[in-house]
Amino acid sequence: MKAARLTKFGAPQDSIHVVEEEVGPLAPGEALLEVLVTPINPSDIATIAGLYGVLPKLPGVPGNEGVGRVVQVEGEAPVQVGDLVFLPMGSGTWRTHMKAKAQRLLPVPPGKDLLQMSMLSVNPPTAELLLSEFGKPQRGEWVIQNTANSAVGRYLISLAKLEGIKTINVVRRKELEPELKALGADVVLEDGDGLAERVREATGGAKVMLGIDAVGGSATLRLGDAVSAGGTVVHYGSMSGKAATLSPAALIFRNVTLRGFWLVPWFNNTPRETQAALMARLAKLVGDGTLNVPVDATFPLENLQEALARAMEGGRQGKVLLTPVKR
Amino acid sequence: MKAARLTKFGAPQDSIHVVEEEVGPLAPGEALLEVLVTPINPSDIATIAGLYGVLPKLPGVPGNEGVGRVVQVEGEAPVQVGDLVFLPMGSGTWRTHMKAKAQRLLPVPPGKDLLQMSMLSVNPPTAELLLSEFGKPQRGEWVIQNTANSAVGRYLISLAKLEGIKTINVVRRKELEPELKALGADVVLEDGDGLAERVREATGGAKVMLGIDAVGGSATLRLGDAVSAGGTVVHYGSMSGKAATLSPAALIFRNVTLRGFWLVPWFNNTPRETQAALMARLAKLVGDGTLNVPVDATFPLENLQEALARAMEGGRQGKVLLTPVKR
Repeated sequence: MKAARLTKFGAPQDSIHVVEEEVGPLAPGEALLEVLVTPINPSDIATIAGLYGVLPKLPGVPGNEGVGRVVQVEGEAPVQVGDLVFLPMGSGTWRTHMKAKAQRLLPVPPGKDLLQMSMLSVNPPTAELLLSEFGKPQRGEWVIQNTANSAVGRYLISLAKLEGIKTINVVRRKELEPELKALGADVVLEDGDGLAERVREATGGAKVMLGIDAVGGSATLRLGDAVSAGGTVVHYGSMSGKAATLSPAALIFRNVTLRGFWLVPWFNNTPRETQAALMARLAKLVGDGTLNVPVDATFPLENLQEALARAMEGGRQGKVLLTPVKR
Repeated sequence: MKAARLTKFGAPQDSIHVVEEEVGPLAPGEALLEVLVTPINPSDIATIAGLYGVLPKLPGVPGNEGVGRVVQVEGEAPVQVGDLVFLPMGSGTWRTHMKAKAQRLLPVPPGKDLLQMSMLSVNPPTAELLLSEFGKPQRGEWVIQNTANSAVGRYLISLAKLEGIKTINVVRRKELEPELKALGADVVLEDGDGLAERVREATGGAKVMLGIDAVGGSATLRLGDAVSAGGTVVHYGSMSGKAATLSPAALIFRNVTLRGFWLVPWFNNTPRETQAALMARLAKLVGDGTLNVPVDATFPLENLQEALARAMEGGRQGKVLLTPVKR
């Protein structure tokens, strides 16, 4: 049994190594899992560098999602040996084997692509909940988001399209327009000066009550100025590393609200059945091709340094995944 | 009849002058008022300079509140000739006479100090509504505010004290502590680094679910970090001239919400009886000495330039008021 061990925050080659580890005996209600696929997400990179908002105690094992197979169960449990399951979110998944509370394991529906399933626990629910938890736009209404080319951004375009919600997609490079439009984006705009006015032009002055921000700094302010009076901007990531800002005009004179979103409390506070239903629905959308994020490459756990280097490269066309136990 | 006429935004000596004007005949349901007292507020100064968030059409008459006497009424009206009334908020009050819709006039309770009453329509309702409209703290619970030495800040201390709500008051100069404590402030802290930690020390780690901000920029961020998880920061002014900021940690990981407050929509959307009840309650609190803002000086309308120069001076100990018609 092997695991990626993070011993300090910093450059990956100095701070993280693959080591032998013992998982130890199971307690009643626990399951032992083989980890089949687990992705390298931007939040993992930020955590290793010590730049994420909530940092784990060290030493620790990074990794927040993936799929595994149940190889042992102790006592009563809603899963059986051989079942394919989603790894519990945020449980330290970059390892060959792990223990988990069986109650926290949600089933992977049969016949699905496990690479796609390994990316189903963080970004797709984030996109779905960003769209639904802050005053869900109705069919024909608009939402605006930045980082529209990110994994969450792309899922959000597809999920909105599915329900007839129109999307304004703010990007740094206008060249992305054809690709995002092919996904179902209604409007694609380059971020920068005059965004609010360009939004009004592009939508014919339609109401935009929801803005989704993963950049922070002045990018949040531009979304705040672009949403309509009484609207909400939801900040769920901080790619710029800067604090989110909102103009006094938006806050005071147009009654715009700024809120945050984090997936962890949702998984902690939502009944297992509700979680399972959401995951089954999202898995189905991946199965029929509605949701799809390209995969750049897979690496065995032993090649972790190579995998991390690839994940930190610009210009990739998809996710980098680890495959600790070959199926 | 005279009025202060603002012809362009800029330095007062160039942009505003007292001119003769005709008020014209009353329409049915209108009243003619003599303006007895009307204050110079920071928002008036910012408007003249062209720096306020919402600017009036020019030429126009500045001034947002005050008290007047009804001298003529046309048709059915809830007021009579001789009544003392609050001038409608935001109606351009720096003049000797004005017309107003009689329905918008709220009565000044008898026997009150008119200088204090002239300051009752903007700041005291702002303080009261900031405290009550965003999840009102209960007896024994805490609220944190910056610009605690402003008129709104002082009213808020008094109104909170009255209901047993504890206040943390953030100021730029710690010398203000004795004065604010005499008003009823529980904790007075200097703004700056480590504010959140100093708040925890001063309150013994108590929950602080409401933060009140009139500064913007990084001062908003410090309040956001000082309020408890799930708390709300309300931005109602922008003394720094900078956009309000909130840290990703506060927004995402501690679920803090940033909202704005503006009094104008409250007056436009609230039934007259509710408004009158609030004004009567606040007038009573002024009458019994619970609420009191010091007056620096009064000036006749002819001496407007002198009054404005005084209002823009640092180190004043109270408000500057105009008295267009001597009582």
